[in-house]
Amino acid sequence: MATAANSHAHPTLIEVDPFIHADQQRGLHNRWHPDIPPVVSVKPGETFKIQCVDWTGAQIGNNDNSDDVRNVDLTKIHNLSGPIAVEGAEPGDCLVVDILDVTPFDKMPWGYTGIFELENGGGLFAKEFQSKAAKAIWDFNGVYATSRHIPGVRFAGVSHPGLIGTAPSAELLATWNKREGALIAEHKALNGGVDPVPAVALPPEPKGAYVGQDLPDDVREKILKEGARTIPGREHGGNCDIKNLSRGSRCYFPVFVKGANLSVGDLHFSQGDGEMSFCGAIEMAGIITFSTSIIKGGVEKFALKQPIFLPSPVDPMYSAKLIFEGISVDIHGDGKQYNMDATVAYKQAALNTIAYLEKIGYTRQQAYLLLSAAPVESHVGAIVDSPNACVTMALPLGIFEHDILPKAEGLTKRDFGQCAIRSDGVV
Amino acid sequence: MATAANSHAHPTLIEVDPFIHADQQRGLHNRWHPDIPPVVSVKPGETFKIQCVDWTGAQIGNNDNSDDVRNVDLTKIHNLSGPIAVEGAEPGDCLVVDILDVTPFDKMPWGYTGIFELENGGGLFAKEFQSKAAKAIWDFNGVYATSRHIPGVRFAGVSHPGLIGTAPSAELLATWNKREGALIAEHKALNGGVDPVPAVALPPEPKGAYVGQDLPDDVREKILKEGARTIPGREHGGNCDIKNLSRGSRCYFPVFVKGANLSVGDLHFSQGDGEMSFCGAIEMAGIITFSTSIIKGGVEKFALKQPIFLPSPVDPMYSAKLIFEGISVDIHGDGKQYNMDATVAYKQAALNTIAYLEKIGYTRQQAYLLLSAAPVESHVGAIVDSPNACVTMALPLGIFEHDILPKAEGLTKRDFGQCAIRSDGVV
Amino acid sequence: MATAANSHAHPTLIEVDPFIHADQQRGLHNRWHPDIPPVVSVKPGETFKIQCVDWTGAQIGNNDNSDDVRNVDLTKIHNLSGPIAVEGAEPGDCLVVDILDVTPFDKMPWGYTGIFELENGGGLFAKEFQSKAAKAIWDFNGVYATSRHIPGVRFAGVSHPGLIGTAPSAELLATWNKREGALIAEHKALNGGVDPVPAVALPPEPKGAYVGQDLPDDVREKILKEGARTIPGREHGGNCDIKNLSRGSRCYFPVFVKGANLSVGDLHFSQGDGEMSFCGAIEMAGIITFSTSIIKGGVEKFALKQPIFLPSPVDPMYSAKLIFEGISVDIHGDGKQYNMDATVAYKQAALNTIAYLEKIGYTRQQAYLLLSAAPVESHVGAIVDSPNACVTMALPLGIFEHDILPKAEGLTKRDFGQCAIRSDGVV
Amino acid sequence: MATAANSHAHPTLIEVDPFIHADQQRGLHNRWHPDIPPVVSVKPGETFKIQCVDWTGAQIGNNDNSDDVRNVDLTKIHNLSGPIAVEGAEPGDCLVVDILDVTPFDKMPWGYTGIFELENGGGLFAKEFQSKAAKAIWDFNGVYATSRHIPGVRFAGVSHPGLIGTAPSAELLATWNKREGALIAEHKALNGGVDPVPAVALPPEPKGAYVGQDLPDDVREKILKEGARTIPGREHGGNCDIKNLSRGSRCYFPVFVKGANLSVGDLHFSQGDGEMSFCGAIEMAGIITFSTSIIKGGVEKFALKQPIFLPSPVDPMYSAKLIFEGISVDIHGDGKQYNMDATVAYKQAALNTIAYLEKIGYTRQQAYLLLSAAPVESHVGAIVDSPNACVTMALPLGIFEHDILPKAEGLTKRDFGQCAIRSDGVV
Repeated sequence: MATAANSHAHPTLIEVDPFIHADQQRGLHNRWHPDIPPVVSVKPGETFKIQCVDWTGAQIGNNDNSDDVRNVDLTKIHNLSGPIAVEGAEPGDCLVVDILDVTPFDKMPWGYTGIFELENGGGLFAKEFQSKAAKAIWDFNGVYATSRHIPGVRFAGVSHPGLIGTAPSAELLATWNKREGALIAEHKALNGGVDPVPAVALPPEPKGAYVGQDLPDDVREKILKEGARTIPGREHGGNCDIKNLSRGSRCYFPVFVKGANLSVGDLHFSQGDGEMSFCGAIEMAGIITFSTSIIKGGVEKFALKQPIFLPSPVDPMYSAKLIFEGISVDIHGDGKQYNMDATVAYKQAALNTIAYLEKIGYTRQQAYLLLSAAPVESHVGAIVDSPNACVTMALPLGIFEHDILPKAEGLTKRDFGQCAIRSDGVV
Repeated sequence: MATAANSHAHPTLIEVDPFIHADQQRGLHNRWHPDIPPVVSVKPGETFKIQCVDWTGAQIGNNDNSDDVRNVDLTKIHNLSGPIAVEGAEPGDCLVVDILDVTPFDKMPWGYTGIFELENGGGLFAKEFQSKAAKAIWDFNGVYATSRHIPGVRFAGVSHPGLIGTAPSAELLATWNKREGALIAEHKALNGGVDPVPAVALPPEPKGAYVGQDLPDDVREKILKEGARTIPGREHGGNCDIKNLSRGSRCYFPVFVKGANLSVGDLHFSQGDGEMSFCGAIEMAGIITFSTSIIKGGVEKFALKQPIFLPSPVDPMYSAKLIFEGISVDIHGDGKQYNMDATVAYKQAALNTIAYLEKIGYTRQQAYLLLSAAPVESHVGAIVDSPNACVTMALPLGIFEHDILPKAEGLTKRDFGQCAIRSDGVV
Repeated sequence: MATAANSHAHPTLIEVDPFIHADQQRGLHNRWHPDIPPVVSVKPGETFKIQCVDWTGAQIGNNDNSDDVRNVDLTKIHNLSGPIAVEGAEPGDCLVVDILDVTPFDKMPWGYTGIFELENGGGLFAKEFQSKAAKAIWDFNGVYATSRHIPGVRFAGVSHPGLIGTAPSAELLATWNKREGALIAEHKALNGGVDPVPAVALPPEPKGAYVGQDLPDDVREKILKEGARTIPGREHGGNCDIKNLSRGSRCYFPVFVKGANLSVGDLHFSQGDGEMSFCGAIEMAGIITFSTSIIKGGVEKFALKQPIFLPSPVDPMYSAKLIFEGISVDIHGDGKQYNMDATVAYKQAALNTIAYLEKIGYTRQQAYLLLSAAPVESHVGAIVDSPNACVTMALPLGIFEHDILPKAEGLTKRDFGQCAIRSDGVV
Repeated sequence: MATAANSHAHPTLIEVDPFIHADQQRGLHNRWHPDIPPVVSVKPGETFKIQCVDWTGAQIGNNDNSDDVRNVDLTKIHNLSGPIAVEGAEPGDCLVVDILDVTPFDKMPWGYTGIFELENGGGLFAKEFQSKAAKAIWDFNGVYATSRHIPGVRFAGVSHPGLIGTAPSAELLATWNKREGALIAEHKALNGGVDPVPAVALPPEPKGAYVGQDLPDDVREKILKEGARTIPGREHGGNCDIKNLSRGSRCYFPVFVKGANLSVGDLHFSQGDGEMSFCGAIEMAGIITFSTSIIKGGVEKFALKQPIFLPSPVDPMYSAKLIFEGISVDIHGDGKQYNMDATVAYKQAALNTIAYLEKIGYTRQQAYLLLSAAPVESHVGAIVDSPNACVTMALPLGIFEHDILPKAEGLTKRDFGQCAIRSDGVV
């Protein structure tokens, strides 16, 4: 028939199985290192698809307790698909990456948001809340997510890769390991010679490190020994967890090695600004569609010390919001005054929001998960009014089934049950 | 004629002259204290107008050098209009304030943005830039601002009060002074027994303090001696400098004293998230229109530790943006790794944006002023990926007369001159 | 003081008194004619203000019956401020007009929306509803309008001139009068030799015509005799009643006479797409702020047969909407099938919306007025699916105090009273 | 592994092959009739997928001439997937349909927009342009469409079903056939006893009619003989071609037969308001994801004469626009004055926009196709200013690779080639 001619699916260049542990699959890696060879190569202008496992590599299940979160092996996380070499890219160039689409697998229309244990992952409020593992499973129905663990909300996803970046050069890698090592040492010293919990940063660690390729032993050993951990975002992009780097956005990456060697993973169906519960996005396995181009000498042309991007024209539009403020005083804790600390201010804004959500019936765990996963926006309001930075958190009203606005008669407290907690019942 | 009947202007309850120094006018005050009596009283439901001087109280002129900024007397700043008592408000209530409109005076259709000297005011990059005084005068043409000192841009204002809050109780005031005093002491100790420059916080200071009312001597003395300084935002609102608290928004304040005693000032025609150059908004004198209502017991009903608000449905819509990232590593400085510090991350995002603007021809001073004043948005991207917080800064493309997008051929560098600098030429 | 220097209000070039009948004031005119001399002249680049009476010229009062609407003298309407000559503009040029601001008078913070009598003005549903005079008075509180006659809603204005245009050339004027005369004749013939009610168009009419200038008798007589009526929009702009031509927009007009001779009036605080009740916007007297520039030969450069414009970046953002459909079948009437008639389709969409609003408790008159005045959006969905055009009407949910969404349990019908009706009680 | 448990793809209830002619596949039908039995049945609350052929049923190819458009068999169009019975739905109920997602087939990442011949399909300007077949092929790259036939633009899709509706009752069907028959007769009479070309409406026609089910002969014969044609939208929804009925929207349909019997087809990747070239959307084959619920008695509860809907929160956000006006005078033709005819006004706005696009280098055919396919918005500005309705057309600037704004120096005319035309070269 007429339509069959010239109909070609965009090629899938890296295939994974979301139901198999990441460390049993090829085309994945979970450390950053310049010596990891590309597993595929593309020409500028091609549209192609890359499949990704979820950030834990199939450790978390669609069930109603959080034991899997409690027991997750964090040395094995962030198995990235790649590297993908782009023909012609050289150090100093700018790699333009169009994130054309990000979708879950048809066969796995669900994801999860987790609160991690204080001793195993932590999260923004790990200490304040003495965090115990908890989670919410989210069902994907087209553009929407809903959760049996957090009833009363439904929202459109702003799907994006939590983690995407080019490979570092050897020099850049050395810089990372050096500066993060210094931070670790500094905090160990401050903590009486003991590494604090949760850790402030993670050094290279061969245990759990993985490169799903055939490699000479010495190369593999070097990578495992030196490879940077994947938790933080860095100059190359990495785990920036920016919700607006969503499908439809165009990102400009600095190139540090020949071929650029792009890797991607940790797909999110949705996320709130801050991703506060650590595994705060709606984590999913899925498929990302890319095309690329190269701007020669782009690093110099655009003063590109870090990626810049054009956000997607397609973004959920929840214009009505209730906004909470926070300043750099630990109002919810010991009342200490901090010096222009936006992180403290963010935390207060979040705690104010959680307190409000508890008034309408959500448990603290549900509220913590919801603010991490829903399209909540957090702005830096002001950062010059010494000693108080001011940060806001905007709760989109359109995601709630009920009207949650402040009313003269007060708020209606409903029973929303509880999210998935540990099988021993500890929260 | 038919139209004259029942036509009544909304009453102006506090009048000021924007051309006369604030400390020569009545109905103003520049410290927070529970004993400052209200100068006017309103009933819930009334619509009324309040006039405000600019935040320096007529110290800055519409001219082409920045000597007035260099010499500004900062002990006299933030002269607020008020307090305004709302009948029936009692501690524990929630005062609902509708910010119905915020406009400049017809006779003063201009404002300014300033970079303050390292030794006199500072600003986010006071140390990095060894800041010298600079400024931009902005002309208001209806909804738009333009500047002869920063050509090539025009944007719609998101007019708002930088400073609005209820009066503190004596207990709350004592808490503020105590915690900020501790911070000052801590940083003095860290700095070898000398107060750091710029100061981390400002203690109560009778010099320059002002209450434009007839008061018994002992009351005045108490206020001047104990009154909290106005620079930081606090639990009552205060100088939060949130650009989205703009005309059309509805704000819910906790009430700490009988009558609530609302004060307002520091009007902004526009501001970028962060207000980074300290006097970063487009500062103006002008008129704010309010109405109020009271929710009895609202503090408890809404878990109200700080104000919350509903933003205005009217907001400039610049959907196309170029977004810059920053992480908590001082990439533009010594490369030091910080621990999940969103303030450092904000600064890197801002410095990346400034570097880009310099590529298209703006001076560093112009770029610094522009990002402070224009409707730039800064989101907390992620705040859990240890050790790097990630903060973004979004530059609205629609405010530029020229296309500033990254192009394969690089960026076109234009000559935009320079902003207003000191008459001695030092920048 | 520092701030007084170089502070100059934008000049007001045409002043009117909104409380005095238009035909007793200078600088106004209510017909379009090339021979009306400009009353002021401006240079490109200047910012200036123009005051305008309301469209009836002070005939409608702030009261609670609609007798003034019933009795309005429509020969005297649309007294426009102007003409304003722009130095250097010549036929064939494009006159660029920045509509910088549109505000009510401080002393008259109210406006009105009216349903006009079938025999005196009509309106979209004049025949269907056998319209009797009704009205709603709207109070302006900063950016918002509310009405004691239509309780339960509050919305931000999208203020704009309903009527703005350049003067026609003699040739263009002749074309208008000829083609509209032919239409009048055609419908008179179709109606058995009697002019239909309401009229399909209005020919030149000296009665009520007004030019508030000293003019030679022959010139005045010519203008009164030939001048085009102001009801319809035409090639020069005119009474287009486009709500998005709001403050902040930039409009490109074709120039037909030397100086362009811009006139403006019929200011609206708000309006829904379609302005269906005829006097459907929130009509107000007020002040418009302009600046202009000229593009030589712009008519040819831009193929400019009619004005084009860039809408304002500032627009009320009510993203949540309930949308009603209409097709070109008179479903609410006799069921007749029309041939791709978007006007019929618009009417059905409107009638469907009115029926819904009646279910929640508004009277038909209130619903008709509300849809005319609130920022309702009407899109042409499809106009090729013979025989049915499809037009939609989108009701912004954020303007309602109550949740009006369809619910399983049905809609809650409240008592919203009635709008202002005739003193004889006839509706 | 953990992730495999409880992972179930949403079921696909109707499968089609987009490469096989529609009339060779089951589960499709191309007429509306109450006696077409449902091919599947669903329970309220289930999420399920339905596959759809393109609206021509595989007649148009991905190639570079328009002969297939010229020769298309329009008796065979609009093969809909369904009917889908919803358990429990009865006449008078409201069927709530969540359109959760709309995507192309992976194996067919392209679509088309066509100008149809005056004698075979027509379109809004069929007569004005003496339309010859032309088309543009669009490539789908994730959320974006681009076309080799209309270079210089790229836009995000607002994917939606052009055609979706519940089955009519016998009474409703009779009403349709009667009123449309009357229109056909009326226009035949007006046209001297000859059916006009293009036709104003299409009567039932057994030729080409198709029901892809096993049916008793008499039932099939009745359906083919009486079944309403699918071109127009009607009270049940149908071919409304509303671009905002996109993925993420929720639609409320009146139910006319037991089970509601929903059918869907004619998927669009994108469309402009009006869909002016007839086959104006980006037509595609693809997959739609639904869930449903029932509101008993909803027709009465919501005064539901036609569908109403809540648009998706996810919508491409192109806030910068250039807007063209049109009034009900045939300015681009013979200058005739029409009486408040929004269809004529729409056409003028469109012709003004086309003229502008020609100034920047697009051919008339390209412009016609682009305005039909891109997310262009058309508002009814005013519909009461006799005799001129005013309709606007807003061109989103963000879809163009180049700046197309009016400039003092005029517009830059580029060479964009031509769209796909007939192999005989006739345009």
